[in-house]
Amino acid sequence: MAGSVYGKLFAVSTWGESHGKALGVVVDGCPAGLELTESDVQRMLDRRKPGQSQFTTARKEGDEVQILSGVFEGKTTGTPISMMVWNKDQRSRDYGQIAYSYRPGHADYTFDQKYGIRDYRGGGRSSGRETIGRVAGGAVAMKILKELGIEVYAYTKSIGPVQIDPAKFNKEEILNNKMYMPDVDAAKEAEEYLKTKIHEQDSSGGIIECIVKNMPAGIGDTVFDKLDANLAKAIMSIGAVKGFEIGDGFAVAESTGSVNNDEFDLDADGHVIKKTNHAGGILGGMSDGSDIIIRAAIKPTPSISREQHTITKDGKKTDMVIHGRHDPIIVPRAVVVVEAMTAITIVDLLFSNMASRMDYVKTIYNL
Amino acid sequence: MAGSVYGKLFAVSTWGESHGKALGVVVDGCPAGLELTESDVQRMLDRRKPGQSQFTTARKEGDEVQILSGVFEGKTTGTPISMMVWNKDQRSRDYGQIAYSYRPGHADYTFDQKYGIRDYRGGGRSSGRETIGRVAGGAVAMKILKELGIEVYAYTKSIGPVQIDPAKFNKEEILNNKMYMPDVDAAKEAEEYLKTKIHEQDSSGGIIECIVKNMPAGIGDTVFDKLDANLAKAIMSIGAVKGFEIGDGFAVAESTGSVNNDEFDLDADGHVIKKTNHAGGILGGMSDGSDIIIRAAIKPTPSISREQHTITKDGKKTDMVIHGRHDPIIVPRAVVVVEAMTAITIVDLLFSNMASRMDYVKTIYNL
Amino acid sequence: MAGSVYGKLFAVSTWGESHGKALGVVVDGCPAGLELTESDVQRMLDRRKPGQSQFTTARKEGDEVQILSGVFEGKTTGTPISMMVWNKDQRSRDYGQIAYSYRPGHADYTFDQKYGIRDYRGGGRSSGRETIGRVAGGAVAMKILKELGIEVYAYTKSIGPVQIDPAKFNKEEILNNKMYMPDVDAAKEAEEYLKTKIHEQDSSGGIIECIVKNMPAGIGDTVFDKLDANLAKAIMSIGAVKGFEIGDGFAVAESTGSVNNDEFDLDADGHVIKKTNHAGGILGGMSDGSDIIIRAAIKPTPSISREQHTITKDGKKTDMVIHGRHDPIIVPRAVVVVEAMTAITIVDLLFSNMASRMDYVKTIYNL
Amino acid sequence: MAGSVYGKLFAVSTWGESHGKALGVVVDGCPAGLELTESDVQRMLDRRKPGQSQFTTARKEGDEVQILSGVFEGKTTGTPISMMVWNKDQRSRDYGQIAYSYRPGHADYTFDQKYGIRDYRGGGRSSGRETIGRVAGGAVAMKILKELGIEVYAYTKSIGPVQIDPAKFNKEEILNNKMYMPDVDAAKEAEEYLKTKIHEQDSSGGIIECIVKNMPAGIGDTVFDKLDANLAKAIMSIGAVKGFEIGDGFAVAESTGSVNNDEFDLDADGHVIKKTNHAGGILGGMSDGSDIIIRAAIKPTPSISREQHTITKDGKKTDMVIHGRHDPIIVPRAVVVVEAMTAITIVDLLFSNMASRMDYVKTIYNL
Repeated sequence: MAGSVYGKLFAVSTWGESHGKALGVVVDGCPAGLELTESDVQRMLDRRKPGQSQFTTARKEGDEVQILSGVFEGKTTGTPISMMVWNKDQRSRDYGQIAYSYRPGHADYTFDQKYGIRDYRGGGRSSGRETIGRVAGGAVAMKILKELGIEVYAYTKSIGPVQIDPAKFNKEEILNNKMYMPDVDAAKEAEEYLKTKIHEQDSSGGIIECIVKNMPAGIGDTVFDKLDANLAKAIMSIGAVKGFEIGDGFAVAESTGSVNNDEFDLDADGHVIKKTNHAGGILGGMSDGSDIIIRAAIKPTPSISREQHTITKDGKKTDMVIHGRHDPIIVPRAVVVVEAMTAITIVDLLFSNMASRMDYVKTIYNL
Repeated sequence: MAGSVYGKLFAVSTWGESHGKALGVVVDGCPAGLELTESDVQRMLDRRKPGQSQFTTARKEGDEVQILSGVFEGKTTGTPISMMVWNKDQRSRDYGQIAYSYRPGHADYTFDQKYGIRDYRGGGRSSGRETIGRVAGGAVAMKILKELGIEVYAYTKSIGPVQIDPAKFNKEEILNNKMYMPDVDAAKEAEEYLKTKIHEQDSSGGIIECIVKNMPAGIGDTVFDKLDANLAKAIMSIGAVKGFEIGDGFAVAESTGSVNNDEFDLDADGHVIKKTNHAGGILGGMSDGSDIIIRAAIKPTPSISREQHTITKDGKKTDMVIHGRHDPIIVPRAVVVVEAMTAITIVDLLFSNMASRMDYVKTIYNL
Repeated sequence: MAGSVYGKLFAVSTWGESHGKALGVVVDGCPAGLELTESDVQRMLDRRKPGQSQFTTARKEGDEVQILSGVFEGKTTGTPISMMVWNKDQRSRDYGQIAYSYRPGHADYTFDQKYGIRDYRGGGRSSGRETIGRVAGGAVAMKILKELGIEVYAYTKSIGPVQIDPAKFNKEEILNNKMYMPDVDAAKEAEEYLKTKIHEQDSSGGIIECIVKNMPAGIGDTVFDKLDANLAKAIMSIGAVKGFEIGDGFAVAESTGSVNNDEFDLDADGHVIKKTNHAGGILGGMSDGSDIIIRAAIKPTPSISREQHTITKDGKKTDMVIHGRHDPIIVPRAVVVVEAMTAITIVDLLFSNMASRMDYVKTIYNL
Repeated sequence: MAGSVYGKLFAVSTWGESHGKALGVVVDGCPAGLELTESDVQRMLDRRKPGQSQFTTARKEGDEVQILSGVFEGKTTGTPISMMVWNKDQRSRDYGQIAYSYRPGHADYTFDQKYGIRDYRGGGRSSGRETIGRVAGGAVAMKILKELGIEVYAYTKSIGPVQIDPAKFNKEEILNNKMYMPDVDAAKEAEEYLKTKIHEQDSSGGIIECIVKNMPAGIGDTVFDKLDANLAKAIMSIGAVKGFEIGDGFAVAESTGSVNNDEFDLDADGHVIKKTNHAGGILGGMSDGSDIIIRAAIKPTPSISREQHTITKDGKKTDMVIHGRHDPIIVPRAVVVVEAMTAITIVDLLFSNMASRMDYVKTIYNL
């Protein structure tokens, strides 16, 4: 059903399985004239790379990206950009039980139901490694947004019961701790919490928040292609995400109009601003020029070392223990994926928006 | 940017403004051979009709739907189904301030930013009346699902602080009270709460929950076109929705793998079941055969009678009072819209899924 | 399969059957700020209207178009433009044989094969009246192109053996004769030829040529979305078209590179021109700035009064005579449809092209 | 503008430049359970490989395809199939004049107009090597069609003035001669003709014909997504194609209804057949069950050794001679590309068609 292609004018087509030969992405619709190097992409890919701490899987992955097309003399040419990472760490092992039993919380059962066949090695297409293509594509989108002065950054907002303290928010801290939290104290607390989860052969969920700064107003559509609707799809399409919200999100359910409405005002320079931002930067599906603020709820890693009850492919009850070392938390590695999907979505809508007015069209065609 | 078209194989294209001549939808991709009458559609449309109580706007709307094409001798022919509702209640009034001032919490400002021009009468395309096309299209989708034995129903889960009590859940009650709550006591309590909001010239938010029963397993895709990702877009595209979640949703952030994983089991007949349904019926983007459970957070009606501060189109500060009678709550009227968007999304993915296996393809082509 | 929606950024969704209640189109993605009136659309619709001469069907059709949405105070607002024409002339008649027999050269048999059900009245969705939606949508596209200084016009190049004489080409003449030929002598000759066909209870084919003037260079894509590829789909999607060519078209098969290559040159003002235009204005899928020249081959009207052999729905041999008065030629009424489809296609690609370069993107977002 | 993605349910996303690192394709939407090996793909790729005769370029290309994803234990899994060919023969050379001058008949000028930047090495993305991705994707589609009993084959119908003789048609001969002609005598004659063109430093055009046998009836749509309209886009998207026709094609312009209509009949087994096939297997946009017969007109190779006049990038007149050895004819190498694009298009429409009737939908979902 061609469900690995995303985007209308800026389209990413990802491919690859956890233990196949390679993984990658084709980015079609990148404008010509953008400076792009492999290190632009590698920098983002490295942020999702495991093997960096006791909280992430031990698997050593080089994950060195190659750009195979679409770039000439350091600049994009407007043709498809194909990027690829070889799978190097394919230790042969016995996939025995995983091959014929369904891990709770994983896509094994549903994959078999849909396709009747399944590459069970490391989760196949439903592995976290699937996000390599997303992040590589997102790196191109991030470069475009940077050229337009738009900034996208995400961070861990909570891990289990440990939440960041808004008063201690320090953006510079995000990439300095393994939790990707903008609050160093919360990060330490979260590490302690995760140690207990490891000890208990258990795992933890958490929340990622993503901010878009300097967003032009008026991007997105009024009906189905609302900016927030597209962001919701983009974020919910990331594995393990179970909820999405914008601005005050679910809290609006207990709010009132007099509180929730953001009144318009003028700043010192006479620019339109909002006094508050309960809306999270989007009104009626279109950006309003204030910060876009979205959140994703991430479920606990389903791979835990405890014995679990399940069934086999041929319909028999069984117990299974998932061997190997597993992250007790998905959140930190997913932070960069949230950024990537947000960037891809915004770029696509920025491009679609360019034909929304006759005067824009005339400007481009010099008329 | 063609943002009023939704769906790939089952596509709805909606049109119309609040105070324009008419509103409608073209449904393209409905299979041939489905029995369909105007009353099938009218029944769903009537559930979003205002004017039924003190909690909904007083505007009298007939909203009688006409099917203009695609049905012959009571059955769909496979060609586009065009459906339309005339706008009857277009009392001429002075739109003065709304025409040149931006209502807080509305799309007035962003609409002007995007298009540079705006049909300000009644909110234009950003009016709640825009959902007429969605609901009419959804009625066709619901009829298809019914033929397949799949049931979709939504209800009000909470209004402000008033939540339904799971112990009192009675599905039959939903359409019996104006709150569309499956708990008659909560409904009464919610009515009382809304009366206080009306008295305070204020409004309330709430939560809608939607259930899909008898869903076949394996529907949805593993990467971008995950079933839950598409549902998120569908639901977040409804005006006033600020959050979406599935299963345990945001609660997973504080859960652990050992609790959140749903173990597989067999029922008495040897069918695969899950012991719990924290996942809300979708694993790895594909339906797992258990109930799909989704929720939408709806913001309080932004039109309130209190004086609010805002700015005018030409950048001057002003105060405004939104005259007329307004619903103190959006939730009850949005329940049927959530059902409609859910049904449209599921039908589209059911159709896309038909070519997911070579044996399905061979079956259809008798090979 | 949603096959009545066409276009990516400028999308038309047509609907309606020959003898249904109405026919129409929803145009989604029209930029805001375009002046548009019903008479802009009516003017084009009138050119496809029958009942004007002995060579076109006698059916009286008002076909007065209504714009139901998307236009406010004479300008487009950027929201979907819904346009509709009521079916007035639905004389009740006995469709007996057509209902259960398959007319040679018509879609009756294939429609039944695809859908298993068929609205047989007047050809249903496969009627020439289906083009009403195309032409109304095309009228909007033509208005956009006019604003950009791009001109699209088509005409009859040949009817049966009667060809226009390039030496007598007079563009002003096109709309002056019922054949829509730019050569008044050829038009007279064609009328005589058609009279013989009517007398013989037969019909004639012909060729339509379409020119696009002042096309900006660089529109279209290098691979699948070549401008000529999209034009080919657009034109071949018109009923009765059996061939499409651009520039020298099929004649290139017997040409040589030294003749067929168009050498580049400079005009007096130093602008790039081509010395010849064998390519028909498109090189490598992208417009080269010279005139786009395309042609469509139209088959003879399949409805002829002679007795024909065929089969019935339940698989029995039969003879049939198609009663009523039929055009002996499709070509003249299809001229405006070719213009419409050409205009829609070019507008869609002009819009898609706006994000092809980083400097274009920066221009729109004032950076 | 994402113009390198083609297909709705069976989508191919191609990438790569003539002298970049590699070329390839991602095929998304291939059903699970199809047996697929690299040799299935290599066999088709080898037919477009140059270096086989004096009539094709001398460049040695291994073009060994690798399947990087989507296949497990010899069968497709339903996930994207990524296929790639490394560019091995990247002899460094002086691209001097090509880098700053526009070759007549090539996309150099239009590429610069669209993107403002161009990978001039070997034509970049507009090279014939771009078809590697199409053919690899087409090989997957051909395998699917084979499983369904549908056969697609193309051949050279004419080269310059040399046409095949229908009386000598021998399908087995097609792959036996370098011209890919089903008539060995015509093939010899064509070789002689091409020798004269080489001697004259010139090139020749020609016509390719493609046949689809055992096509089920009812595939394609009645309006925009007509089967022939989609085939037209697919074929016209191949570089150098200047015309497309189906059945009698342009000859219908001089035909009459009484001749052109194909009467329906019954064969000895009572199956519906047509007495003739002027329509080329498609009526009203849908397959009628008889052979689909389409033709493409291919222009002469634009790279010729003669001196040609043109202009430089900075707008100066110049003369240029295109060095190196060039095919005097594109036709034979394009035969397999026509097959590939035909197969991809038919597979995509076969899949879309599966939801055209409620009874099909019910069959798949066992209801």
